[in-house]
Amino acid sequence: MAERLRILLVGASGVLGRAVAAELSPRHDIVTAGSKSGDIRIDIADPASIESGLAAAGALDAVVCCAGAVNFAPLAAIRPARIAQSSYGLGLADKLMGQVNLALAARDRLRAGGSITLIAGVLAQTPIAAGSSASMVNAAIEAFVMAAAVEMPLGLRINAVSPTVFEESMADYGPFFRGFDPVPVARAARAFSRSVEGLETGKTFRVL
Amino acid sequence: MAERLRILLVGASGVLGRAVAAELSPRHDIVTAGSKSGDIRIDIADPASIESGLAAAGALDAVVCCAGAVNFAPLAAIRPARIAQSSYGLGLADKLMGQVNLALAARDRLRAGGSITLIAGVLAQTPIAAGSSASMVNAAIEAFVMAAAVEMPLGLRINAVSPTVFEESMADYGPFFRGFDPVPVARAARAFSRSVEGLETGKTFRVL
Repeated sequence: MAERLRILLVGASGVLGRAVAAELSPRHDIVTAGSKSGDIRIDIADPASIESGLAAAGALDAVVCCAGAVNFAPLAAIRPARIAQSSYGLGLADKLMGQVNLALAARDRLRAGGSITLIAGVLAQTPIAAGSSASMVNAAIEAFVMAAAVEMPLGLRINAVSPTVFEESMADYGPFFRGFDPVPVARAARAFSRSVEGLETGKTFRVL
Repeated sequence: MAERLRILLVGASGVLGRAVAAELSPRHDIVTAGSKSGDIRIDIADPASIESGLAAAGALDAVVCCAGAVNFAPLAAIRPARIAQSSYGLGLADKLMGQVNLALAARDRLRAGGSITLIAGVLAQTPIAAGSSASMVNAAIEAFVMAAAVEMPLGLRINAVSPTVFEESMADYGPFFRGFDPVPVARAARAFSRSVEGLETGKTFRVL
């Protein structure tokens, strides 16, 4: 396990992405990516951007995602609508299918034995006001990695990390998470290390 | 609990829908709906069809859904794509958002104290070949009902039923479910009764 890996980190500029970079960069080579910054530009909501970004990244042992947008909206404000017009559309197109598409593209490019790690979140198991999109999307990501793991070629592994709210994010998200015990983002970053540097696949590593 | 309820049953013509009708019709008034048959035409993939169908149904105490399509495709055959072009698009637009939109429309029309029951499935917890879309969608439905339940108005309840493969469907689905113990569809129908005639909300009733 002392092998030095080349890791693409998508969403590198956020609170979580920076913590994951700090956790992994002492032992591995990190290629940072984001929609607005990083070594490479990748907008996960755009499949063409994922493909071109991965092509630009070159040979990789791991793809790690810390990016993904969802809407927070009270259920009472959500009307029936097709996905493209729905309040649920952002989460389905960005955090869910953005990460699924990133995983599919990584499947076709990673070195044998490589790994893919996606970001989910505690709302998969926990209902909060305005959180129905995040709950839906996070649970879908967990189930996707479980299912995709058994069909991955070349010994590729795929896992998700599902953290609760971060101490470092309470200024922004605290009102949604009253009464929750936040965790230091460095703990969530260690769960990414466990996925990238461990041997498990199809798992969701919860950080609660 | 001896009250006679008026229940809209969407997907009434399928294997599960017929079993749910057989379970509930001795005690309640069933309005059947489907995309091609039934008292009312509802295609859950079309929000306008949901709205007009519910308007046509009149006063209701419960909406029950036994409809929802997903693609079964080997992961190796799935390429990165936007939702509208993706192999995952059918499941997201039909079984997931079709049922979410049905629930949102029912929320606005059901009598106080009424209930909504959606259909999920065992693949939320179980990976099979070609099943990644079904896994993703079924888990998303479970999490949606958990989250939506806490935001429902007027004491409305919402649950999901998650059955394994039916004995009656093994001729069609058996090759996907080798080694699974199938259940009689009548057992899954009783889980719908538990949702409609019980008091729980935000739950997934598993039939394994």
